[in-house]
Amino acid sequence: MIDLRSDTVTRPTDAMRQAMARAEVGDDVYGEDPTVLALEERVADLLGHEAALFCPTGSMANVLAVRAVVKPGEEVLCEASAHIVRAELGAHGAYSGITSRTWIHPRGQVDLPTVRSILAPDMGPFFVRTAAISVENTHNFAGGTVLPLADLRDLRELATGAGVAVHMDGARLWNAHVATGTALSEYGAIADVMAVCLSKGLGAPVGSLVVGSADVIAEARVWRKRMGGGMRQVGILAAAGLHALEHHVERLAEDHEHARLLAEACGVDPAGVDTNIVAVPRGDAAEVVARAREAGVLVSAVGPAVVRLVTHLGVGRADVERAAGVLAAL
Amino acid sequence: MIDLRSDTVTRPTDAMRQAMARAEVGDDVYGEDPTVLALEERVADLLGHEAALFCPTGSMANVLAVRAVVKPGEEVLCEASAHIVRAELGAHGAYSGITSRTWIHPRGQVDLPTVRSILAPDMGPFFVRTAAISVENTHNFAGGTVLPLADLRDLRELATGAGVAVHMDGARLWNAHVATGTALSEYGAIADVMAVCLSKGLGAPVGSLVVGSADVIAEARVWRKRMGGGMRQVGILAAAGLHALEHHVERLAEDHEHARLLAEACGVDPAGVDTNIVAVPRGDAAEVVARAREAGVLVSAVGPAVVRLVTHLGVGRADVERAAGVLAAL
Amino acid sequence: MIDLRSDTVTRPTDAMRQAMARAEVGDDVYGEDPTVLALEERVADLLGHEAALFCPTGSMANVLAVRAVVKPGEEVLCEASAHIVRAELGAHGAYSGITSRTWIHPRGQVDLPTVRSILAPDMGPFFVRTAAISVENTHNFAGGTVLPLADLRDLRELATGAGVAVHMDGARLWNAHVATGTALSEYGAIADVMAVCLSKGLGAPVGSLVVGSADVIAEARVWRKRMGGGMRQVGILAAAGLHALEHHVERLAEDHEHARLLAEACGVDPAGVDTNIVAVPRGDAAEVVARAREAGVLVSAVGPAVVRLVTHLGVGRADVERAAGVLAAL
Amino acid sequence: MIDLRSDTVTRPTDAMRQAMARAEVGDDVYGEDPTVLALEERVADLLGHEAALFCPTGSMANVLAVRAVVKPGEEVLCEASAHIVRAELGAHGAYSGITSRTWIHPRGQVDLPTVRSILAPDMGPFFVRTAAISVENTHNFAGGTVLPLADLRDLRELATGAGVAVHMDGARLWNAHVATGTALSEYGAIADVMAVCLSKGLGAPVGSLVVGSADVIAEARVWRKRMGGGMRQVGILAAAGLHALEHHVERLAEDHEHARLLAEACGVDPAGVDTNIVAVPRGDAAEVVARAREAGVLVSAVGPAVVRLVTHLGVGRADVERAAGVLAAL
Repeated sequence: MIDLRSDTVTRPTDAMRQAMARAEVGDDVYGEDPTVLALEERVADLLGHEAALFCPTGSMANVLAVRAVVKPGEEVLCEASAHIVRAELGAHGAYSGITSRTWIHPRGQVDLPTVRSILAPDMGPFFVRTAAISVENTHNFAGGTVLPLADLRDLRELATGAGVAVHMDGARLWNAHVATGTALSEYGAIADVMAVCLSKGLGAPVGSLVVGSADVIAEARVWRKRMGGGMRQVGILAAAGLHALEHHVERLAEDHEHARLLAEACGVDPAGVDTNIVAVPRGDAAEVVARAREAGVLVSAVGPAVVRLVTHLGVGRADVERAAGVLAAL
Repeated sequence: MIDLRSDTVTRPTDAMRQAMARAEVGDDVYGEDPTVLALEERVADLLGHEAALFCPTGSMANVLAVRAVVKPGEEVLCEASAHIVRAELGAHGAYSGITSRTWIHPRGQVDLPTVRSILAPDMGPFFVRTAAISVENTHNFAGGTVLPLADLRDLRELATGAGVAVHMDGARLWNAHVATGTALSEYGAIADVMAVCLSKGLGAPVGSLVVGSADVIAEARVWRKRMGGGMRQVGILAAAGLHALEHHVERLAEDHEHARLLAEACGVDPAGVDTNIVAVPRGDAAEVVARAREAGVLVSAVGPAVVRLVTHLGVGRADVERAAGVLAAL
Repeated sequence: MIDLRSDTVTRPTDAMRQAMARAEVGDDVYGEDPTVLALEERVADLLGHEAALFCPTGSMANVLAVRAVVKPGEEVLCEASAHIVRAELGAHGAYSGITSRTWIHPRGQVDLPTVRSILAPDMGPFFVRTAAISVENTHNFAGGTVLPLADLRDLRELATGAGVAVHMDGARLWNAHVATGTALSEYGAIADVMAVCLSKGLGAPVGSLVVGSADVIAEARVWRKRMGGGMRQVGILAAAGLHALEHHVERLAEDHEHARLLAEACGVDPAGVDTNIVAVPRGDAAEVVARAREAGVLVSAVGPAVVRLVTHLGVGRADVERAAGVLAAL
Repeated sequence: MIDLRSDTVTRPTDAMRQAMARAEVGDDVYGEDPTVLALEERVADLLGHEAALFCPTGSMANVLAVRAVVKPGEEVLCEASAHIVRAELGAHGAYSGITSRTWIHPRGQVDLPTVRSILAPDMGPFFVRTAAISVENTHNFAGGTVLPLADLRDLRELATGAGVAVHMDGARLWNAHVATGTALSEYGAIADVMAVCLSKGLGAPVGSLVVGSADVIAEARVWRKRMGGGMRQVGILAAAGLHALEHHVERLAEDHEHARLLAEACGVDPAGVDTNIVAVPRGDAAEVVARAREAGVLVSAVGPAVVRLVTHLGVGRADVERAAGVLAAL
């Protein structure tokens, strides 16, 4: 089986397993795991923020990040197919008491005039207060698209002027960085608080981080415990993350090339494939998923009419070429 | 002062006060207030539903109505300037754990292709489930617009096919009914659950109702108590509602005519003024509000660039003409 | 039927109805209802606090009062049969995200050594923080008991020393005041935030108030709106409250005397009946309720083995004597 | 430093690290991690339940377990120093909307008459419904006490009769099993839903499980994802758990013996030390913690007047003897 369902399915490499096996550990609830501390410092540095916090999942990192800047009864604005409003099972409402309004963009990007028109940070005590705008970079369900840096800078300016925060869901920010050459810290400068993930393209088995100011992270640490995310000798997992940051970032370029190959095979313009995800419009998405499976290729439906293919370090060139053949035939 | 801020500012008429003073009452928490029961039955009948529940406010009625069909961790879709996502202080997230995504329409209407594209009722256990679509009729912040019945019927069909519920915020449904001649029960047939209000155009001092099936209302009664909305000898207020239904519905046509007069004075096309609300685009909304106040006319800003004028039974023809003069000069 | 189920069942007197009918009103969401403002000021003054806020129910007043001093993820301590943890349908957890621990006292009183032993205001970031202690005076389900002032003062001292707040559920504080002669402001001095009710012994049809500092009340006003408690021309109801404060406080002494008569009839020591409630231990509570109803007397069960009788202004001496006869026979 | 703060501080042994390094893994969000599946099946079997679910922490396992049987607005009863109401930062209120009432027992045990007196499963629509009773076995903050099996069986009978569920926080159930010889499945028979932990006495770095019926676990799986607990190739951690179940259960007897040694040194009657925790009453708890640290022994305060010592596989006989000397001197 060639698994193109998601870049979450990667298994740790041998070298990564060795790094995990020899990781120095401590009780991270007490802040005593040296490997976790090293990872948190490394990620904060890369993104140009003060501090970071290791979390079991990207969903938890997003929930903690958004609640750091949006209080119960306030709202966050985002694109309508953002992961935070589509693929986190309503956690921001259910667990943080946060409401949301959305704009719609075919490539998941910032639509600045629309954002400006719905933004409502200070309409007085009878209206929901817009407390943050969230962007996702790369944007998963729009097909791994990279958000243009100029748009992000305009958004930052708008947000600063309006007194609202910016949250960046950077689960796949590494892909944006490799695809564009934009420094991670340049992306980091856009956001007040971010979430980044180690277990997608980077290939670590588990782990995401919230990134922000020292104050935000100190408070997020308490809420992580409340949410059941305060693990103990978790340096085992952090070691995988450190290994991935060292060895698996630059290689994402291969995944991107593979994605363009798959796009061509599926009749999707490769010029629109920015990174490692291909969104294929198919009215019969569920059926395509089933037939590809029969032919030995796993893909997923992320909407009633969208098939998604994702390349990652578990899928080499030969696999991609074989999958391309199968998918072309469908 | 001529008060055009909202139709919520109306004071009870003498006849309404007399109806309230002689109302028969009981303890409504125990279901023993005959006037409340009569009102609930009357409203359910008008809308063609099985049952109704008296609530202290339209906000509470909406919260109870939406939670009847959307569970914590599920989502409701609505237009981006709907009252439920703009003017209820995030209660659906904060109190019901519900998340939302929005489409944008300049007149607050249903955009069926967009609704269809974001609707996601059954994408499996990793995605937020769309449990309901909410419409607001008339639509307050879009300027009291009436939603076309054909659109509502198409939406009902889409929702039924997808297995999701329809919620109608009918705070000003009476205005839509009078403006179009469409029977209240025809609107009622669109929705699984509704909220209607007595203290806006109808001129009662306090009161809204949730409307739906007997089961929905029985459960809503428990949640009303939990939410602190289970009042005691509240027939005093229900009497005002019954009086308003008898005497204040047809007269809404006057308010609609008044609104068109004001629109003309403000350079807004009266053809776009469906009912008793005029949304005036003004970049300097806050300043217009202040200057109108100085000239003896109260209006409100419902966005950074929208001034809203609302006509109601507390504002007669002479007042409207005077206000038109003041506003034209601004 | 003689209705001893609760003092919530009282119907407004003719004089009260007249006061309501001529009440001056305005839009209270905008803070413009003069009768509501007068009531809020009057109640704040009586209790020696800065400000007060009118609410549709005692449950909502308690929810707003407790959340003013306890944040999501923090805890309130109270007696195990307090109204806030037994009869508000879990609203403090469901709506405010607050958790609770309880001590047990047969008369609903403060058990200071136990409170001291479970109090945990500053155990660090892994423990629930005790943010408030709540007392109920008089204590409904313990049988309308008055909490001794000395105990309340000791509790206040403990709380101040520990840096935690005191909430007083004073739904029936008027009864405690009349029974003991203790000034309302002396009780007010115990608490940081209080809830008092107009629609129980005082006989108003609807209405409770949150009482506290100006800051607490300003914030509670926003949360009241969020919770769906921001009503409009509600001076109609506030007028009943003002009338009740003028005319129905001192007469509570009659209710207390009536309660002692009923206690004797039921074999309960009247010395233990502090105010207008009699808790009668009966293993077959549900059956007693049913048989009394057949004999023309309504009473309620507030636990599997407790029948509750409540006297109020709707039950005169003759009624009480007749009910005593019926109940003695059971 | 000899670390007696908690049995959470253990580091994985070499053998455990090897088991982790060679673990077969898959994407557990998709239910495809064979090691996780094996662990879940093993734990469910041991406890005599149908299914189990791996979670990142004991706190999350408890939150998911309790919410499986208690809905928002319902209540759970437990002892006042239970972990769920003291050391989970109010998560059951903040995240599940659940309220709680507590009884108090010096050894954390079931006080059946008191439980019976406060239990209220069916008082009608105005009262909080008791949906579950929770017990903690062993009971952490009472000093690792074992709950007598006879009491648990009586509680089970009471609960069944009343139609309420039983939740068991079995974070340290392994210790109860080893201390008493009672089969894990006998404890399992008491509860509808349980949480057990691998990272305390058993010495795994991370991991807890919810245990219950197949239906409960299927629903808990969705809520785990919502809560941010759905990790990917987490078989790495599950492998540690399987190793611990094989090799670290019986050895808990050593920890228990060590705890009794420490108790004697601290003047605590060892007959009251059931397992691996010693609760030492000391008015100056914080100071004792500080002075022990200076002398090379880490202990913790779990209340203003309680010092807690915990033995575990990271502390051998020699360490214990040295610590005993240090503590005896304090």
